[in-house]
Parts: sequence; C-alpha cells; structure tokens
Amino acid sequence: MSKSNLEQVLAGAGNTVDMLRNSQIGAYVYPVVPTEFSNWRDEQRAWRDKAVLFDQSHHMVDLFINGPDAVKLVSDLAINTFNNFPVGRAKQFVPCSYDGHVIGDGILFHLEENHLVFVGRAPSANWIQFHAETGGYDVEIIYDDRSPSMPMGRPVVRKNYRFQIQGPNAWQVIEKLNGGPMPELKFFHMGTMNIGGRKVSALRHGMAGAPGLEIWGPYDEYLEIRDTIMEAGREFGLTLVGSRTYATNTLESGWIPSPLPAIYTGDKMKAYREWLPANSYEAMGSIGGSFVSDNIEDYYMTPFELGYGPFIKFDHDFIGREALEKMDGDSQRRKVTLAWNGEDVAKLFASYFTGEENYKFFDLPLANYASSNYDAVTHGGHDVGLSMFTGYSANERTVLSLATVDPRVEIGQEVKVLWGEPDGGTNKPTVEKHKQLEIRAVVSPVPYSKVARETYAAGWRTGDA
Amino acid sequence: MSKSNLEQVLAGAGNTVDMLRNSQIGAYVYPVVPTEFSNWRDEQRAWRDKAVLFDQSHHMVDLFINGPDAVKLVSDLAINTFNNFPVGRAKQFVPCSYDGHVIGDGILFHLEENHLVFVGRAPSANWIQFHAETGGYDVEIIYDDRSPSMPMGRPVVRKNYRFQIQGPNAWQVIEKLNGGPMPELKFFHMGTMNIGGRKVSALRHGMAGAPGLEIWGPYDEYLEIRDTIMEAGREFGLTLVGSRTYATNTLESGWIPSPLPAIYTGDKMKAYREWLPANSYEAMGSIGGSFVSDNIEDYYMTPFELGYGPFIKFDHDFIGREALEKMDGDSQRRKVTLAWNGEDVAKLFASYFTGEENYKFFDLPLANYASSNYDAVTHGGHDVGLSMFTGYSANERTVLSLATVDPRVEIGQEVKVLWGEPDGGTNKPTVEKHKQLEIRAVVSPVPYSKVARETYAAGWRTGDA
Repeated sequence: MSKSNLEQVLAGAGNTVDMLRNSQIGAYVYPVVPTEFSNWRDEQRAWRDKAVLFDQSHHMVDLFINGPDAVKLVSDLAINTFNNFPVGRAKQFVPCSYDGHVIGDGILFHLEENHLVFVGRAPSANWIQFHAETGGYDVEIIYDDRSPSMPMGRPVVRKNYRFQIQGPNAWQVIEKLNGGPMPELKFFHMGTMNIGGRKVSALRHGMAGAPGLEIWGPYDEYLEIRDTIMEAGREFGLTLVGSRTYATNTLESGWIPSPLPAIYTGDKMKAYREWLPANSYEAMGSIGGSFVSDNIEDYYMTPFELGYGPFIKFDHDFIGREALEKMDGDSQRRKVTLAWNGEDVAKLFASYFTGEENYKFFDLPLANYASSNYDAVTHGGHDVGLSMFTGYSANERTVLSLATVDPRVEIGQEVKVLWGEPDGGTNKPTVEKHKQLEIRAVVSPVPYSKVARETYAAGWRTGDA
Repeated sequence: MSKSNLEQVLAGAGNTVDMLRNSQIGAYVYPVVPTEFSNWRDEQRAWRDKAVLFDQSHHMVDLFINGPDAVKLVSDLAINTFNNFPVGRAKQFVPCSYDGHVIGDGILFHLEENHLVFVGRAPSANWIQFHAETGGYDVEIIYDDRSPSMPMGRPVVRKNYRFQIQGPNAWQVIEKLNGGPMPELKFFHMGTMNIGGRKVSALRHGMAGAPGLEIWGPYDEYLEIRDTIMEAGREFGLTLVGSRTYATNTLESGWIPSPLPAIYTGDKMKAYREWLPANSYEAMGSIGGSFVSDNIEDYYMTPFELGYGPFIKFDHDFIGREALEKMDGDSQRRKVTLAWNGEDVAKLFASYFTGEENYKFFDLPLANYASSNYDAVTHGGHDVGLSMFTGYSANERTVLSLATVDPRVEIGQEVKVLWGEPDGGTNKPTVEKHKQLEIRAVVSPVPYSKVARETYAAGWRTGDA
C-alpha cells in the first residue's frame, strides 16, 4: 500500500536513520540559476573584494501568512521575541519541537499589518502551515514552493524574485541605482529603493560588516531588475554568483542552513507527521556524512548548538519553551568554523589520481552531498562535535566547515573530521563507493577568521585521553 | 559603430588570437540537462559497466536541409564520399576550408529522399547554411539552434529530443523496450524501434564495442520517452548522465569535439566572414589553454590531425580538395590520448589548499574552460603537439586528454602538457589568476587503453635534444 504521510513512511521504513541515510532524493540542488556565470573562484572573491549579486529567487519556500492571527501564529512557534516586530521589520525565525530541538529557521518579513512572509527551507514553512491549518488561527496561507530541482526546460515561475546586493562596493551600486543616497536603514529593517524607474522593496542586510540589501518584487520583473542592477554595478565590479558558488558564502559568514528537522520522534509531534505528506522534504530528504547513530534524535540540534541561544526569549509562550527553560545553555555544544588541514585535503584529492582506492569525492567549492550533513568531529578518538556544512573558500584558500562542538573544545585547537561514510558508503545517489579519511582541522571562530593553531593536543583533554 | 558581421569584428579587434583568447562568452555549456542525476563518478562508471542514457536534446544545432540539392550541397562541402549515403544512413560529415583545414564536424542523417539533418556544433551548421543561401542550391534550410546556455527558468523548446542508449547492457534495454529482438542494424544505419507504444527513429551507434542506439522524435514527447526508457532500463542498471559528466565520455572514446573552425583567414573565406553575424559562435567563441601563437592559423587542424584522414575521398569535388590532394598525410600530426601523471595532477590540486599561489583550476570531471582548448604538448622542451579536450575518467582513475602529436611521438612515450595560461591568465570569465604547471603524460591510443610508459626520454628524440 502506498504511504500517504510521513508517519506511515517511518512505520514502513524501520530505522529512521537508515531510511534518511539511504534516501534516493539526490543532491540538494540550488535550482534554475546557472552553476557559474564566470567562475566560482572569482565569484567568491567578488564578495570579499568588490560586490556580488546573489540570486535567491529559486531555492527557498516563500510562505505567505495573511490574517489577523499572523503574528500570533509565528510567535506561538518561535523561540524569538515578537516585542520588536512592527511592520517593516524582519527577523530570523527559529521554531522548535516540544522537546526544544530546532525544526529549522528562516527569515520572517513583516510586510504589512497582518501580512507576513516566511522565506526559508521547507521544514519551517511546513511547520507553520500545519499550525495555521490545525491550530484555530484566523490566517490564510499561500505556499509558494521552491523551484523544481530539474526543470528540464519547462517554465519556472515564482511569486517573487529575490536578490541580495552584497560586498564592500554594494552600497555604491545601491546608491547609484537609487539615484541618490539611501535612507540609513538599520539591520533587518525594511524600506524601498529605486531600480530603473521601479520602486522595489528592500531589507537592510550585510556581509562581513559591509552594508547590503535584499530586494524583492513581482517575478515578472525578475530578469529586467537583474539586468538593470548588473548594468549599474559594472563599474564597481558587481559579479553574478552562480548556484555552484552561492551556498559557500555561508562558510565565511557562519550560518548553518541544514540541520535535520527534529520532527521524527515524540508523541506530541505525531499529528504533524501524519499531516506531512509522504513526498515532503521531511520524508524524502537525506542525511549524509560519517556520523552514524541508530537514534535519529542524535541528529537533532538545540538552538544553543546552532548559535541561536541569544534568540530565546521567555517573554511569550511557544512550543518548546518548557524544554528550553530546563536547558543549560552553557553546557551545550556551540557553533564554530573548522579550518581543514591543507595537506590532509591534498591527500584526499591525490587519492582520485593515484592508488587503487579513493576517498569520498569532495566537490569544489561545495562538498555537501545530502540535505543534512553530519560528519563526526573527534579529539583523541572521542566524539566532540558534528561538522554540518562543508566547502572551500578561494578567499581563504582553505576548506571550511561549520560545526557544533563541545564547550571544552577551544578556538585554535586541532580536531579531526572524518570525511566519508563508513562501510564504503550508503546507497544515496550522490555517494560513490569510497573509503573514509580523517582530516585535521583547526577550531576557529564564526564568522571565520584565521587563527593560529595553539597546539596539537594541549588545552582541554578528554577525561580519559 | 556596432559590428554586424565577423569580418568587421576581426578588423576592429586587432589580433584574432588575442580576441578569441579573451572572449567574454564564458564556459561552453551543456545546457538544460541537470549537472548530475546521481553523481558523475557513478554516471561515468555506468557506461563502462552497465548502461547509460545520454540526453543530447539540447547542446547541438539541428540543421534541416530539404530539397532536391540537399545531398549535392553537403557533398560539395565534405571530405567524405557520398557514394554510400542512401536514405536511412548517417555519416560523420567533415567540411574543410579552401586551404584544407577543418571547419568542424557532426553527424549527417539521410532521413528521407531530399531530407537531411546535420547535428553538431554551430561552425559546420553555419557553413552549410551559408552555401545553401549563396551557392545557388535548390534547398530550404531550417536552423534549430541549440538551447540557451542560461534559460533562467524560461521555457526551452527544440524540434526534436535526442537520446543515446549506450553501454554493455544497452541492447537488453533496447530489446525490452522494443518488445522483442531488434533487427540487426549496421553501424550508422537507421531504423525504428518501439518505445511505450510509439515508433521511434533510431540510429545504430555504439561505444567501446557494445552496440547502442541514438533515438530521436518530436520534442513534445521528450520527457515521456525518457521516463519510459528509464523505467524499462532500471533492471539493467540504466543510468541518466548529467551535463557535467556527458562530454567526458569522449575522453574514453576519442572524438575531439572542439577544434577552432578554420575560417578566420583567407580571401576565399572573406564572403563567409561577412555573412557570419557579429554574435555568431565564430565571433563570440573562446580559445583557452597554454598554447599561444600570434597567428590564428596555428590553431587550425587538418583532417589528418584530428583522425579524419581515412574520411578523405577524392571521388567528388569539394571545397578544400585541391589543398588536401597536396598534403602528405603520413607527415601530419595524429590523434592520441594523453594519460596524465597522477602525482603531477595531485600536485596541481594540492596548490589549491597549500601555499600562496595556485595553478589553473582543474574542474572535475571536465576541465575545459573555453569553446576550443589548446594546451601545449612538449618533449625535451620542444612543441610536439596540442592537447585539445581534457578531463577525468573515474573508470581509468586518470586525467585524460585528447591531443594531436607529431608523427615521431610514439605510443607509450612520456610528454609534458603545460596546464594553464601564461602571464597569470587571460581575461576570459572562466579564468582566475593562476600560474602554469607542466604535467607529465603518457602518449596512449585512441580510443584510450592503458599502456605502460616505455621510458622517460628514449624512443624518438628531437634533433637537438
């Protein structure tokens, strides 16, 4: 009998970890946008040295929430406070499960009175929609799904285009387009700007300290707006960023896009699993990497582990509040960047050209091979964390990954990341037969900055090391 | 004043080599087809071990030639004979310039009496169209251009879909689809087969000795036919090949897809250059690689150098005949495969992760970064050939390139390929700042098979080595 919802899929699958580790969904794709406009090395360098245009029109769900209960709905789901969320403001929305584990995150825009849009991966959008439909809220939901991963030449239409203009020269591009100085917007405050005779919605954003904007508008103006921006930006070195490069910007800025949604267990989450279709992100998505546990809950993240501790505000009721009130944030793992050892990475690549066996292929510049990525991080043979988003920065000439590590792990220390899956690899389509390799990495800050490795093994030690 | 044709573009550009080496066209893209369906390693292995579906619906021009002079037109342009070209036959069509240099190649199908279609890159299609329009032939041309490189979600429509089913299990897939044994077609003979209730045109093809088919039909049946084939092929390991993998199959089979069309010089070619638009492949295309000459004619290839010597038949008049009659085929360069030294390639990759500078990025599995690729091949410091199509074979676990080398260069010898462009690289968008690296390579047969390197420097020697 074919399964109609996630709960049935899980019941039929046996172990949930096995199911997700062997998902047949394939690569997590950044669709429609060409892989490279110029080349990924120069596209990466442009956000550090000049300016870039990120095209975010296709890879995220836009969930429109309209109605008198719109803010109440998201407030009931968010660890965040809503005391600072008037019209014209945005915030990084983080919903948790009843047990206080992260379901996902994304950006919530307060567009107008009683009109919100959530922009992000499917798990948070689905969770909002579920409560909108089942929670007795007076809201209407419009779910504008991400573009298909393989359009195969069929037309792709979204409700909105969405761009970011970022980098040290971004503001010059913006003011030239605007035809004059832009009003001083605070971070995550919204306004408008002029682009080629149109008034366009804008959100103050930024990257590495330089101010930038996210802009959006009706999709039928998509390429017109893009071309107008690129024309104006030419003199400032504005560079289009392709889909192959795009997601690697977070390696330098430090946001982890892809935790596993903490929805596969718990009686209180059962109604949600019965609501989620059998073809949902949650049912089809994949787990990749060297970290393997029989217990799917070992893949869940608390807000503290992803760097969202400061977002938690007990000034309102929300799902997960009770569990989070009991958690000790200081004893939790915390987010870091891992700077991978160049010689070890070179050894990885050498295996493709020499010898009889090879290590898991490491794609440049983005090396992830699943919807959610979990590589084991060890020190002295003991698990000390999880590496969750991996790629290469041409700016740093270094492989970087975003990880969450035990509090005793210090910045500057050396740890090991285990690259590749055990036993030759899972059955995911993205996985060729391979062997594993331990790679040294220096624990570094988020956002990344280069730190000297203090010592091989000093600093903290595991109790029995 | 804006240029309207290639001749004007060349006059305005100064040196033609400089112009093409600094083209702003960007990567030569295999459009619409997703980069990977599973992963490029397993997609490559599938054509060696199981079966693959190549989707060739988008990357080539289809030029339909209809009318009583159709065969006469192509015969007047081809080094090939047309004494063996009845309806239902195909051939690899090679047109040359008046000086006997290759303009391009592609497959010519004799569909019906007075109906041909040429399928290939633009240079040959343009050349045919020019003569159709200006040569007094009684033909009508329909030019169905390749799909756009960056459709950006806009619909893409071709006249035909085009697939190949190849690999050791291909014939089992074909006979299952056909619902019974396929008639024994000879190589490059055409027939029909059944696919899901439709009768589909088919050309007998093959790869590494195993029989396969190329099939085509109306584009509105594109995805229906594909899905029917994939469903039938599942039990035989039939694998979809993505655009990232597709072109690398020629590294093992030995066809050089991308010589520079020999049309930039010569008074007799001037009318053609005046006919070619300023936005044509010939005006916009790029040359990449370490081989640099001031003289664009040094990039031209004779049929002998590309392995087409046996195609030349003086049983008919054709453009270039006089020049080819004077050429001594035995003294010409000949096509070989170069098997790149694994340790040297590993050194190339190590530079991305260690040290201060890096070598030209080598993309896996396809490393070309221009429309036409020309890397210098040397022995003892002397130019002995050109390496023209470069990538990696997971089947061979080796970087391979297709090259044309001096006749004195022997199979099994070691030569050097210079990877990267001089002086930090050209201004092509695909080129980041880099330095060059000499890489050892073993001269090997086409199609590729592994040979032992005989010796470092013995065998032949340059006169003054």
